[in-house]
Amino acid sequence: MEITEIGEFGLIERIRQIFTDSGGMLGIGDDCAVIPAGDRDWIVTTDMLLEDTHFLRNGITPYDLGWKSLAVNISDVAAMGGSPAASFLSIGIPEGVSVEYMDAFLRGYRDLARKWSVPLLGGDTTRAAGKMAINVGVLGYCPSGQAKLRSAALPGDGIYVTGTLGDSAAGLEVILGGETAAYPYLVGRHTRPEPRMEEGRILGSIREVHAMMDISDGIASDLNHILKASGVAAVIELNELPMSAELRGWSSEHGKMPEEMAVAGGEDYELLFTAAEGVVLPETIASTRIGTVSPGTGIRYLREGRSFDWSPSGFDHFRDEKEI
Amino acid sequence: MEITEIGEFGLIERIRQIFTDSGGMLGIGDDCAVIPAGDRDWIVTTDMLLEDTHFLRNGITPYDLGWKSLAVNISDVAAMGGSPAASFLSIGIPEGVSVEYMDAFLRGYRDLARKWSVPLLGGDTTRAAGKMAINVGVLGYCPSGQAKLRSAALPGDGIYVTGTLGDSAAGLEVILGGETAAYPYLVGRHTRPEPRMEEGRILGSIREVHAMMDISDGIASDLNHILKASGVAAVIELNELPMSAELRGWSSEHGKMPEEMAVAGGEDYELLFTAAEGVVLPETIASTRIGTVSPGTGIRYLREGRSFDWSPSGFDHFRDEKEI
Repeated sequence: MEITEIGEFGLIERIRQIFTDSGGMLGIGDDCAVIPAGDRDWIVTTDMLLEDTHFLRNGITPYDLGWKSLAVNISDVAAMGGSPAASFLSIGIPEGVSVEYMDAFLRGYRDLARKWSVPLLGGDTTRAAGKMAINVGVLGYCPSGQAKLRSAALPGDGIYVTGTLGDSAAGLEVILGGETAAYPYLVGRHTRPEPRMEEGRILGSIREVHAMMDISDGIASDLNHILKASGVAAVIELNELPMSAELRGWSSEHGKMPEEMAVAGGEDYELLFTAAEGVVLPETIASTRIGTVSPGTGIRYLREGRSFDWSPSGFDHFRDEKEI
Repeated sequence: MEITEIGEFGLIERIRQIFTDSGGMLGIGDDCAVIPAGDRDWIVTTDMLLEDTHFLRNGITPYDLGWKSLAVNISDVAAMGGSPAASFLSIGIPEGVSVEYMDAFLRGYRDLARKWSVPLLGGDTTRAAGKMAINVGVLGYCPSGQAKLRSAALPGDGIYVTGTLGDSAAGLEVILGGETAAYPYLVGRHTRPEPRMEEGRILGSIREVHAMMDISDGIASDLNHILKASGVAAVIELNELPMSAELRGWSSEHGKMPEEMAVAGGEDYELLFTAAEGVVLPETIASTRIGTVSPGTGIRYLREGRSFDWSPSGFDHFRDEKEI
C-alpha cells in the first residue's frame, strides 16, 4: 500500500498505534511534546525541511532559508505558550553547495536565534547524496502545567488568530509565478516568517485562553486538529478573516478568492487559539475573532451570518504536491 | 569555495564561530549538549541519516534501519554516561515507499526504544521529493555535573574501548561485496548495532573515568577529538586492539589488515574512554585497555612496543565517499 493512500495523518495515527507507551508524558499529537520537570515543563519540537518538498533552492535565499528553518520550530514553542531555550540543527549538504551559501544560511539562522535568545547547542552536519535536508529541534519551557494544548477548546469559546492569514500562500504563488519584485510584502511573509513568540508567551499566561496552535497548514486543516482533540465543532465567519491589503490586491489582480488563501493556504505561522467568551486580551496582541466553538464536529462556514457551503482542505504532506 | 575544501570539521568550526553565544551551556563539540537543570543535567543529541549517504535502501532491511536510526543516537547518550528519556523522529519519505516498509521501520525503532524504555514523544513526517531522510533527536539526563566530556582526559590515563572494533566496517564491505550470507555476525554488527547503554551508565558513575565518547568514525578520528579537546596525546598499542574472530577470519580471506578496520573503520558504536591509572572497572564491563594518554599532541602507534609509522585517518562526512 502506498503512503498516499493513508496520507500524513493516517501515518501519524499508525505511529501512535505502534508506539503506545509514552511514559506519562504528553506525546505525539500537539505542536510540542511536554515533559514535566518540577516547577517548569520542558517542551520539545522538531521540524524537517527538504529541498524541492519544502523549499526550492533557487526560490529562497540561503539567509532566508536559515531564518525560516528556525522560525517554523520556535513558532511551535510559541504555540504552546512557551519560551525557547536551545536549538539543534542537522543539515545534509549536497555537492555543489558552497561555503558561502552555508555561511549565509547560518547567518540567517543565527539572526533569528539572537532575536529570541535561543543558543544553538548542537546538531549534525553531513554530506547528502541527494537533495539538501534540514532538521531543526528546539527545546523550550513554560511554567508547570501552563502549556496550551490543542485539546482544551470548550463550546462557547471564541476562535481567534493573530496577524493576517493567507499572505504566505500568496507569496509562494508570487515566487512560482516569477513576480517577486511586484509583491515584496507577500514574498517576505513566505520566506521570512516572524514567529509570534511574544504573543505566545502572553497568551500562555492568560487562563481564559484555552486551546492554541500555530497555523502551518491553513486553518481549514489546523483548526480541525483542535476540534478533533477537543471533541468540539466550530463556526467560522468568512467576513471576519483578517487579510492584508496586499493579499486582497494580489487576489483581485489574479482572479483568486482571498478567503481561500486565508483558509486553505499554509505557512502563515500565526497563532490560532480559543478563549472563553468575554476574555479581555491585552491591546499589544493584534488578534481577530473569526468564529465560535460549538458542540458537535467539523467546521461550518458563514458568509455575513448565512451558511456558506464550502469545504476547503488544508495541506497534506503526502497527498498534495505543492509546498515550497 | 566547496565544502569539501574545508571538510566536516572545518564546517563545524565555522558554525562554532558564527554562533558564539551558548548561554553558559555546553554546546557544539561533544556527543551531546549538556543543560544544567537543578539536581540533574539534561543531555540532548541529534543525528541525521540520509539515503545513499548513510544507508542504501536495498542494503539494510527497514526493521534494521529503524533500529539503527535510534541506536546511533542513544549511543551518544551512553557516551555521556547518561540515560535516555525520550526520542523524536523526523522522516522524509519518497514516493514508492510502502506503508508496509514504514511499519517495519517503525517496529525496529520501537523494539530498541522498548529495550531501553525511551518513549517516542514527537517528530515530523513529510513527503520527500528526493531520497529518504531520517533525523532522530534524543533527550536524556544524568546526575548534575556527572556528564563525561571529551575534554577530561589527563596524561597518564589508560585508554579503553568496550567490545571489539572494526566489525561494522567489515560488515559494510561484506554487504557491498554481496557476501552477506557468509558473514552474518559482521553484517549484524553493521546493521543492528547495540548501543552500550548499560556500560555507559556504569562508567558514568565512576569518578576515575575521565573522558568518554562513542566510536562512530573510527578511533583514529574519534580519539583525536578527545586528544584535541583535552590538550593531550596518546600512544596506542596495535596488538591490544580488541578484534573479533570473525573480523580476523574475514580479513585473512580478503587480504586486509584487520587493524586498519579496527582503527579507521566507522560505526562501531562502542565506547572509547580514558580512566586514571589503577582504576578497577567492574567485571560486567567488557573493556580492553589499548593505550595511554600522554602530554603533547596526536596519536603514536606501537606494534609490540615499537614505534609503527602509520597515519590512518577516520571518516570525514564531506571528504570521504563511502559510508553506507
